[in-house]
Amino acid sequence: MADVLKRYFPILDWGRRYNGAALADDLLAAAIVTIMLIPQSLAYALLAGLPPETGLYASIAPLVAYALFGTSRTLAVGPVAIISLMTATAIGRISGAGLADPVTAGFMLALLSGAMLFALGLFRLGALANLLSQPVNSGFATASAILIAASQLKTILGVGGDGSNLLDMAASLAGRIGRLHMATAAIGVTAIAFLWWARSSLHPLLARLGAPPAVAKTLARTGPVAAVILSIVLVRALDLEHQGVAVVGAIPRGLPPVTPPILNAELWAALAGPAALISIISFISSVTVAQALAAKERERIDPDQELIALGAANIAAGLTGGFPVTGGFARSVVNYDAGAATPAAGAFTAIGLLVAAMYLTPLLYDLPKAVLAATIIVAVLSVVDVGALFSTWRYSKSDAGAMAATIIGTLLFGVESGLVAGVALSLALYIRRTSTPHYAIVGQVPGTEHFRNVNRHDVVTSPEIITLRLDESLYFANARFLEDKIYALVASRPEVKHFILMCPAVNAIDASGLATLEAVNARLKDSGVTFHLSEVKGPVMDRLKRSRFLERLTGRVFMTQFGAISLLDPDRARKTLGAPLAPDFVARPDESPNAR
Amino acid sequence: MADVLKRYFPILDWGRRYNGAALADDLLAAAIVTIMLIPQSLAYALLAGLPPETGLYASIAPLVAYALFGTSRTLAVGPVAIISLMTATAIGRISGAGLADPVTAGFMLALLSGAMLFALGLFRLGALANLLSQPVNSGFATASAILIAASQLKTILGVGGDGSNLLDMAASLAGRIGRLHMATAAIGVTAIAFLWWARSSLHPLLARLGAPPAVAKTLARTGPVAAVILSIVLVRALDLEHQGVAVVGAIPRGLPPVTPPILNAELWAALAGPAALISIISFISSVTVAQALAAKERERIDPDQELIALGAANIAAGLTGGFPVTGGFARSVVNYDAGAATPAAGAFTAIGLLVAAMYLTPLLYDLPKAVLAATIIVAVLSVVDVGALFSTWRYSKSDAGAMAATIIGTLLFGVESGLVAGVALSLALYIRRTSTPHYAIVGQVPGTEHFRNVNRHDVVTSPEIITLRLDESLYFANARFLEDKIYALVASRPEVKHFILMCPAVNAIDASGLATLEAVNARLKDSGVTFHLSEVKGPVMDRLKRSRFLERLTGRVFMTQFGAISLLDPDRARKTLGAPLAPDFVARPDESPNAR
Repeated sequence: MADVLKRYFPILDWGRRYNGAALADDLLAAAIVTIMLIPQSLAYALLAGLPPETGLYASIAPLVAYALFGTSRTLAVGPVAIISLMTATAIGRISGAGLADPVTAGFMLALLSGAMLFALGLFRLGALANLLSQPVNSGFATASAILIAASQLKTILGVGGDGSNLLDMAASLAGRIGRLHMATAAIGVTAIAFLWWARSSLHPLLARLGAPPAVAKTLARTGPVAAVILSIVLVRALDLEHQGVAVVGAIPRGLPPVTPPILNAELWAALAGPAALISIISFISSVTVAQALAAKERERIDPDQELIALGAANIAAGLTGGFPVTGGFARSVVNYDAGAATPAAGAFTAIGLLVAAMYLTPLLYDLPKAVLAATIIVAVLSVVDVGALFSTWRYSKSDAGAMAATIIGTLLFGVESGLVAGVALSLALYIRRTSTPHYAIVGQVPGTEHFRNVNRHDVVTSPEIITLRLDESLYFANARFLEDKIYALVASRPEVKHFILMCPAVNAIDASGLATLEAVNARLKDSGVTFHLSEVKGPVMDRLKRSRFLERLTGRVFMTQFGAISLLDPDRARKTLGAPLAPDFVARPDESPNAR
Repeated sequence: MADVLKRYFPILDWGRRYNGAALADDLLAAAIVTIMLIPQSLAYALLAGLPPETGLYASIAPLVAYALFGTSRTLAVGPVAIISLMTATAIGRISGAGLADPVTAGFMLALLSGAMLFALGLFRLGALANLLSQPVNSGFATASAILIAASQLKTILGVGGDGSNLLDMAASLAGRIGRLHMATAAIGVTAIAFLWWARSSLHPLLARLGAPPAVAKTLARTGPVAAVILSIVLVRALDLEHQGVAVVGAIPRGLPPVTPPILNAELWAALAGPAALISIISFISSVTVAQALAAKERERIDPDQELIALGAANIAAGLTGGFPVTGGFARSVVNYDAGAATPAAGAFTAIGLLVAAMYLTPLLYDLPKAVLAATIIVAVLSVVDVGALFSTWRYSKSDAGAMAATIIGTLLFGVESGLVAGVALSLALYIRRTSTPHYAIVGQVPGTEHFRNVNRHDVVTSPEIITLRLDESLYFANARFLEDKIYALVASRPEVKHFILMCPAVNAIDASGLATLEAVNARLKDSGVTFHLSEVKGPVMDRLKRSRFLERLTGRVFMTQFGAISLLDPDRARKTLGAPLAPDFVARPDESPNAR
């Protein structure tokens, strides 16, 4: 019982060992992360198309929920760029259809996605996220980053506009370029330049100036905070708001609201698809970050428990006026570098943001939206990795194809279409690859008991025997391929009397594969050819024994290919090997050949 | 050029060698098949919900087209039960929606399905049919046969009705049972009993009476023809038509009509889905029959050319007032047994049916529809194979699951839903199986260079080394599974210094697998563990060399697992083997280990 509780509530484990030293570490880390999260939370709320305060709300309750359920000591959850973009797309459609206002759509999306994550965790179905291949995931990240950066141009230039794909955004920008607001654009472009400099050059500069490494590392990440403070001072000093620079304005002060779920079947149905995609992406991002950090300490996170924790965090966001959240890379690294010792650091960060939401929002009144847009652009452009497309192309053409389809689909048709197209294409390509498996006609390497591809090696074969080695599991999508090859081979060599299927790389044979073996056996019999198997793996053999195939097999199942040739063409095998025959090469019926 | 022509027109090959003996064989076979096809064609037209003459039309031009393009010497194309049922479902919906009358929907469906088959053949995409696993195909055949038999009950009982799934049919029958027509039911039930007896007992009876085997075999198949003749005589003698027994009635005499395609985008869109499913099923049925017959002669059919031939046959059906056709098992076997020597037999059969369509239809006026329904029921019930569900269950639970889903889906929701559900489920189950692959922690079998599962064998391991053998290709759906396992193993054994991934059954590593290996390598490095590979296959190694993984790998790639242990724990390896070390166990960088 205690163990079950500990599995679902890791806090029961680390909480008992909590002490003063850990508390001091956690408090310091929390202070640093809080300062960094304030502008980020506001920026991602704007990216999601929501009022800025929702970003703060999404950074409070979810952190506490994750601290209760999470297995990573240093993962920091909250709004992140890619999820905020997906949220923007979904709530744009929902509110456009008049199903709910954006704020309601946002917290309902978090709630539904949280419920899905929680359920996946309870049923230990985290493996569903595996359908997203690495190239699709990477292409999706790159394309989303480009889309996110493009979506912020309208704010940087002060022109406004909309669009959920690159073409719409470009058309919208082109139509509004006459409204360009010079002061806004000047602030935006300056902010981008400053943030880019801070990101790339501040750390080495501070190091050269003699700052201790830890301090230099942390200070270098305060670029966005400095940009926020400087721009607020500038706007206030020059009264830029009255000259038309868009500012964040009045943010309601106070505790996050309690937002009970809206029970509307039509709304839930419309949210289900986006929520499912958001759940998958948020789980993958979060687990990737958590695993990277855990490995540094030779610790381990539990992916299924992470699903539960992320689910709880999103449900918390959904009940307190937030929007979908996940584990963020940048903030988690800051948390780790700042020395966070336990998930309590996340809870302390939540307290910091709560204080900000209650008391600091008036200070942010004059913050230009263009500066928030600049922080988003600089943050996401570092994710763009076009080089990955080329390195993937070098490694695997079909993986690169799936990646390119995801990038193009996302840019031209939006995040959801791009993701679905990528997943469908990578599944289709996988099925295609395994449906035309690698195989080889093999012969004996002279002087050895080894058998190799006749096209690659100088080997000896018998005219009356064909041996085909199949380098893939035999299943429905490739069963007919094998069948066709076998018939073609036998039809092309009328002198053949034995056909051996060599199976050292056949990890499984499904019912279609079995049916094919039965058909091959029957038809080779009609053609006067005996059918044998060799080097069948233990589990595969165990399963074949549950069918009637072995009774009907015209030939035998040989433990080794050399055993097969020794029996079927003993003269040649002996001459080729130049050594006497070993006593027994043939598998007894009760013996699992190649047992594992 | 001549070779290309010969590939697409096999007639150029066999036509040149045609002679008198082959002509005599083909003429005899054609006469027998013609007599058998007349009632079958009428029956399947009624099953498809079309006028009887369309069945004759579908058995004329398509046979000539197949004779031109087909690679099987004995395949006989024409209407078959399962395709006729699918046609009935599709044209019921199309004509219900007012898009076209049934006859037009029927020939347009043939045309579109023919165009699809033809295109698949030209682009050599026959492999698409492989998506239909054997259990799904078998379940679909069983469920369709039950549906077909159920759909004929209304004709046997003379009550009429409709429904495209079992529940609708049952409800319709139940509502109309009061209209039961006794004379019709008596004829129908008697016909079923007679046909069943002819099918099961006539052949042995004739053999006992001393008929030569070939004659007995052929005569035994004339049951349906005898039933047709006897019932016509009976109806005419007792004037049963005027007592309400439904008869075939007046069939228009003459050549098949020319039916040009209807250009209606909405109609084409509505036909596309059913046409695609019909194409797949008809290709699979046809190729299975053709392969079975070809194997008996040690010949070979070309599946892609078969697609072209089937496509041409269906286009021919579509242009001459027919409906979708495919290679039928029963008629092809009759053709083969009757001694058909070349595809010309099919063309002669077409002439026979043409004569029937022009001159014999008045003789069929009094044929009771109930007798046609009886021939259908007896033909399809032999296909029902419920035992296959149990034998599949014994062999593989997940295959049996896909089969059961197909059967239930087809019976309850109709042919199209059942088929789609079955294909989707078998793909999902395959992905699930490969996403949690078999793996083993292995150790050295004392006294040998072999390594086996520590849980199955008495083996020796080193405390500082973990060796995991992965028994599946590494790809996106199982990459995270492997990663989790590796981290869990390393976290559970703090003394570990080396991790070896043994890859003898890894047939491929995709980009996601590569990314996982990179991540594992980096994170094990962070944990102070060196990462090695062993027994990597040639093609996999070739591909890894195209990436930067091998440069970054903290450990080495060993040609053999024994080589790895010999280098990493030489004392133990030597002691365990009790023999001196071979000179070089380690793969040189330029050497393909386990080359194939």
